[in-house]
Amino acid sequence: MSFSVLSLLLLNAMCKLGSALTPPSFVILLADDLGFGDLQSYGHPVTSETPALERLANGGLRFTDFYSSSPVCSPSRAALLTGRYQTRSGVYPGVFYPGSRGGLPLNETTIAEVLKPLGYATAIVGKWHLGVGPNRMYLPIQQGFDHYVGVPYSHDQGPCSNLTCFPPDIKCFGTCDTGMVTVPLMNDDAIERQPVSFPDLEKTYGDFAAEFISTCAGRNRPFFLYYASHHTHYPQYAGKDATGQSRRGPFGDALVEFDGTVGNIIRALKDGGIHKNTFVFFTSDNGPSLMRMSRGGNAGLLKCGKGTTYEGGVRVPAIAYWPGRIKPGVTHKMASTLDILPTITSLAGAKLPRVHLDGFDMSNILFRHGPSKRKAMFYYPMDPSEEIGLFAVRLGKYKAHYYTCGSILSDTTPDQDCHSTSSLKQHDPPLLFDLEADPSENYNLAMSEDPEYKAVLHKIQKESPLHHSERLPSMCFSAVGPFSPCFSSGSATLV
Amino acid sequence: MSFSVLSLLLLNAMCKLGSALTPPSFVILLADDLGFGDLQSYGHPVTSETPALERLANGGLRFTDFYSSSPVCSPSRAALLTGRYQTRSGVYPGVFYPGSRGGLPLNETTIAEVLKPLGYATAIVGKWHLGVGPNRMYLPIQQGFDHYVGVPYSHDQGPCSNLTCFPPDIKCFGTCDTGMVTVPLMNDDAIERQPVSFPDLEKTYGDFAAEFISTCAGRNRPFFLYYASHHTHYPQYAGKDATGQSRRGPFGDALVEFDGTVGNIIRALKDGGIHKNTFVFFTSDNGPSLMRMSRGGNAGLLKCGKGTTYEGGVRVPAIAYWPGRIKPGVTHKMASTLDILPTITSLAGAKLPRVHLDGFDMSNILFRHGPSKRKAMFYYPMDPSEEIGLFAVRLGKYKAHYYTCGSILSDTTPDQDCHSTSSLKQHDPPLLFDLEADPSENYNLAMSEDPEYKAVLHKIQKESPLHHSERLPSMCFSAVGPFSPCFSSGSATLV
Repeated sequence: MSFSVLSLLLLNAMCKLGSALTPPSFVILLADDLGFGDLQSYGHPVTSETPALERLANGGLRFTDFYSSSPVCSPSRAALLTGRYQTRSGVYPGVFYPGSRGGLPLNETTIAEVLKPLGYATAIVGKWHLGVGPNRMYLPIQQGFDHYVGVPYSHDQGPCSNLTCFPPDIKCFGTCDTGMVTVPLMNDDAIERQPVSFPDLEKTYGDFAAEFISTCAGRNRPFFLYYASHHTHYPQYAGKDATGQSRRGPFGDALVEFDGTVGNIIRALKDGGIHKNTFVFFTSDNGPSLMRMSRGGNAGLLKCGKGTTYEGGVRVPAIAYWPGRIKPGVTHKMASTLDILPTITSLAGAKLPRVHLDGFDMSNILFRHGPSKRKAMFYYPMDPSEEIGLFAVRLGKYKAHYYTCGSILSDTTPDQDCHSTSSLKQHDPPLLFDLEADPSENYNLAMSEDPEYKAVLHKIQKESPLHHSERLPSMCFSAVGPFSPCFSSGSATLV
Repeated sequence: MSFSVLSLLLLNAMCKLGSALTPPSFVILLADDLGFGDLQSYGHPVTSETPALERLANGGLRFTDFYSSSPVCSPSRAALLTGRYQTRSGVYPGVFYPGSRGGLPLNETTIAEVLKPLGYATAIVGKWHLGVGPNRMYLPIQQGFDHYVGVPYSHDQGPCSNLTCFPPDIKCFGTCDTGMVTVPLMNDDAIERQPVSFPDLEKTYGDFAAEFISTCAGRNRPFFLYYASHHTHYPQYAGKDATGQSRRGPFGDALVEFDGTVGNIIRALKDGGIHKNTFVFFTSDNGPSLMRMSRGGNAGLLKCGKGTTYEGGVRVPAIAYWPGRIKPGVTHKMASTLDILPTITSLAGAKLPRVHLDGFDMSNILFRHGPSKRKAMFYYPMDPSEEIGLFAVRLGKYKAHYYTCGSILSDTTPDQDCHSTSSLKQHDPPLLFDLEADPSENYNLAMSEDPEYKAVLHKIQKESPLHHSERLPSMCFSAVGPFSPCFSSGSATLV
């Protein structure tokens, strides 16, 4: 072996050592109201204009049994950032509104706060939706984020029908949720622009994200980037590069724009030479908003969508991507947005918050295709109450529904169970489904004569102490007291 | 360049020349009642035990808009083999029964008959279901096939509940369609065994297929193999290698066994050194049999299933596979089982039958990712009649339903439109759906005020001369006369 070859090998080994010593960076890509069936890799027959997401799916680990903690936005995002059910942090019922007084409690520990002590740079672009509050006390920069560029709540929470959603001058469809205050674009805790310009918004986000990555890479500083897109939430919008680019209409164009930013973020990681030391996780906050008809998403073969505790409400697409570390493939292991904080904590070598966590480290699934530490998933409605408690439990492949309720957010499809006209129902015995033989929750096993099903029900009831109202630990709802004023404006709306 | 390198290159070039001069061989892999949403590549969250089909999907061209010609078996198979709607060949209403007197008319030209004059060896393994008839006059060996090993109709068309479907001794589920005559296994036109042994059946098929391929390859003879599996039709069965191997239960085990045979067939092509000169096409005969509950398949996000003219009844998974010739990918071009005969005819350099064909050569899609020659798809119910004619038409991305009718085959899911209780309805104006924005056929555009929709409806009505009963060419139903005795036993059942 020549000297030059030897020195090349040595240099290579040193670089690897160097990169192994730099803690990994983290990127969370969160879509909004994107359903289980909305991506090509999840079987949608039309979506084909999402090459970046398809590259993630083909080059990463695609989850088939991945859950958000709530069928609506704010609780789901609280759980993702804290690793705890919304019933612990008090981010319920429903979602925050511009006039809400509360927010994610400041004593909750977010992923950003877990990573800060290790010197991570932290940033969020996009939709926060965990409160603004008096003196803007609940904005992300109070929760461990160094930087924030985005809309602090849902972009339809304002009077938007006279705004342009697609260039040159296509007005936003529908009336949004109106109110008097137009939607602002924040820069940290200052208002950068009001009302926001939807056709320019994604470029602002993408440019900021790429710049943040590039700066961190240049300084060899590990970082956490939380890209919480407004896409594909109603009303759909896009800049000129994505407008009219999809065969699916406005929803598709929004998805195309989201995909473009995903592509830009991955490119920035590569350009910074850090793509092999960055853990990227893509998912969605909850199921599709079926009330929006063909402008809403699609839950694929899952039952119902947003606002319900059927699978379509909370099972979401998810892809873990880390070239060289995570072997491409498909996993059927059960996991959740709740598991992201413990996983990132473990990968960074950080300290877990000293609170009761509901998440589990996914490393065993990600790196060894091993079993999941998660054995169960608990399904809370959008408006959990102490009287009722849990709506449903998944234990292994079985799911028991103790309560079901339709939602206006899942109106319009032929399944009447999904609709707002299907009022709260208690099921005793609970409905029981085998989600492997029957992922669409069509065939209730509880009526079966098979003794196995009785045993399964018994096991679920035994292992789910939370599902009986009388046994609901008050801890779960301890945040209700101090944070019930969150919703004092009476605006826990369905957004 | 050394002499040895030069001669190697020459030899290589000669081999390529040789293989280019040998006409390609053809393999059709046809699944039974496998729904649009049943494979991992089509988004099913559970199926993961189908590595051979996933390899086809990843290495071939996967169709998202591929149609069978009928929501039930016999008409669909007649159309696949002849390139003509069942209304031309007279293979309707419903399906053939063991006691049916008729079959696919002998003057219809099958793919096997197209290829015979060019010296092709031809064989079918599995389910024929195009008639037996007096003196077994309608069996495949009368229709251009040199060899036949299989069950001449559906494997549930006999008394099967006392038979073993899974080893060692799990009885077949349900009563099948009973009758007095047990299901036979044919060898050409002789009965090899009666009743058939389900756990041994797939091995018999797979062994025959591999042997046939190997023999043809050894003789450098082009061939046509039509592997028409009984999987995943009810009652599901499997041999010991597949039993219990799936997380989806009996349906999944049947799919695992089907996948195993697909893998063996591809391996036989490779072992014979002919996989780069063989066009493989996989598809299904119709949508999932939802009446079978978790033992039936899943149509994914498509509406309804078998027996209906909604998308779930006729849109099926399809993959074209030809390493080195067909570039891997996903296509949204519209195509149909009707197009297989013209495509194979073109690839073989054979002569098209001198009859009115309803299919189009797919070469432009397959080899150039170009536009489809197919502009429209016509949807006939399982029991077409001269009085009613077409039920629906797809033209481009729009689909108009003139009539709809539920089916007992699609009972059990929450969508009432699919059920047998939804009797025949005429729609005037027709229901109109945009299958790109709304693949689930949820949002009828016909009520829209948008003038574009009126124009679309007008165009569909103008370009679909068959949909008005008074204008139905009698030719379409010309086979009714001579072949109405097909169903004289009154057994045009729903199988």
